[in-house]
Amino acid sequence: MTYRLLEVQKSVLSKNAGLARDLRQRFADSGTFVVNLLSSPGAGKTTLLEETLRRLAPTHRAAALVGDQATDNDSLRLARAGVPVRQITTGAECRLDALMVGKALQDWLLADYDLLCIENVGNLICPAEYDLGEDLRVTLMSVTEGEDKPLKYPLAFNTAHTVIINKVDLALATGFDRAAARANIERVHPGVQVIELSARSGQGVDEWVQLIEERSSAKRAAPASV
Amino acid sequence: MTYRLLEVQKSVLSKNAGLARDLRQRFADSGTFVVNLLSSPGAGKTTLLEETLRRLAPTHRAAALVGDQATDNDSLRLARAGVPVRQITTGAECRLDALMVGKALQDWLLADYDLLCIENVGNLICPAEYDLGEDLRVTLMSVTEGEDKPLKYPLAFNTAHTVIINKVDLALATGFDRAAARANIERVHPGVQVIELSARSGQGVDEWVQLIEERSSAKRAAPASV
Repeated sequence: MTYRLLEVQKSVLSKNAGLARDLRQRFADSGTFVVNLLSSPGAGKTTLLEETLRRLAPTHRAAALVGDQATDNDSLRLARAGVPVRQITTGAECRLDALMVGKALQDWLLADYDLLCIENVGNLICPAEYDLGEDLRVTLMSVTEGEDKPLKYPLAFNTAHTVIINKVDLALATGFDRAAARANIERVHPGVQVIELSARSGQGVDEWVQLIEERSSAKRAAPASV
Repeated sequence: MTYRLLEVQKSVLSKNAGLARDLRQRFADSGTFVVNLLSSPGAGKTTLLEETLRRLAPTHRAAALVGDQATDNDSLRLARAGVPVRQITTGAECRLDALMVGKALQDWLLADYDLLCIENVGNLICPAEYDLGEDLRVTLMSVTEGEDKPLKYPLAFNTAHTVIINKVDLALATGFDRAAARANIERVHPGVQVIELSARSGQGVDEWVQLIEERSSAKRAAPASV
């Protein structure tokens, strides 16, 4: 039974890889810079994206996709930033996949957008296995979750281009051991970029927004090939 | 593809239901009260179990199983309470299932234990689908995760016998809206018991420990049939 399940999963992941390749080509053709944001439930993805989109909306043509098992709370929150937002309700599935993203974007003219932020389902396991054709995969952990999360969910941290440590305004109150957390991240993904910030207080958000600005400008300037 | 995956999943879940029924019978025969603890990563399962086992170890013959994708950090932490602890490393799987639990208990004489606490993999989605033969399923959320988690992960809250709101010592610092959280829990699972506590400060832990004591005594007193 387990063997059969593994075989089917392997085949699902290989189909996903093909669809993700197609998406990546579409994003290259349109010059759209795509961010895929992963974290546990409640680590602060939506608050960070709200703040990111609010800051970038005046100068960037931005949009967002939001994955959730149920409810459209997050898409309503993101829409407050004044950018187009589409909800993907995943039902029983614990992650977004390239097919869901492709369907959600079917009637969008991607050339109209410089930046697409994808908020994945709150989960540190399943989303890490699915490529969505993104340029930047960001795994976010909050100081309230404990320092060992990179060791316990290695794939999410190992496949991330950037790791964000969020809620640093609560570091003292929670007794967060910053050095231990950074050492654990470095252990599962040597050399990965780490940004410490608080989406709520704004501390450190400049560095994150600047990263998106630089990377999305660089993509628009590059020739459309992957 | 998705259809085939769903069919295989259905068959996996139905196999799990049979194995869980067998486990439930074994736990009834041995009079062992079994708790299955579910939450997001970092919501405080291990800290709460450490405190629970520390308090109950002098008067109860207790043991623990700990599921994690990787690392044995949590089983080392729980072993400090002085009770037998076995680690289940789930690898690619995002949850424990009845087969894993049965294998982990294979060489244990269950009649030696009044209480078995199972710490599931940190995930609010997959573990909710798998019955482990437990007497008490507890879903734990922390105030740092936000009030909407019950709406976003309805199955985890709907299948719980008891919901714990943890880290109430951080409620003020995080701006936690207690009334909204309780209303959301009530909405997905009307009438479910809710315990508010802080595993770190000890506030409210008495009520939780008392619940375990009462329920495990009642099970030992009951005739061994299910």
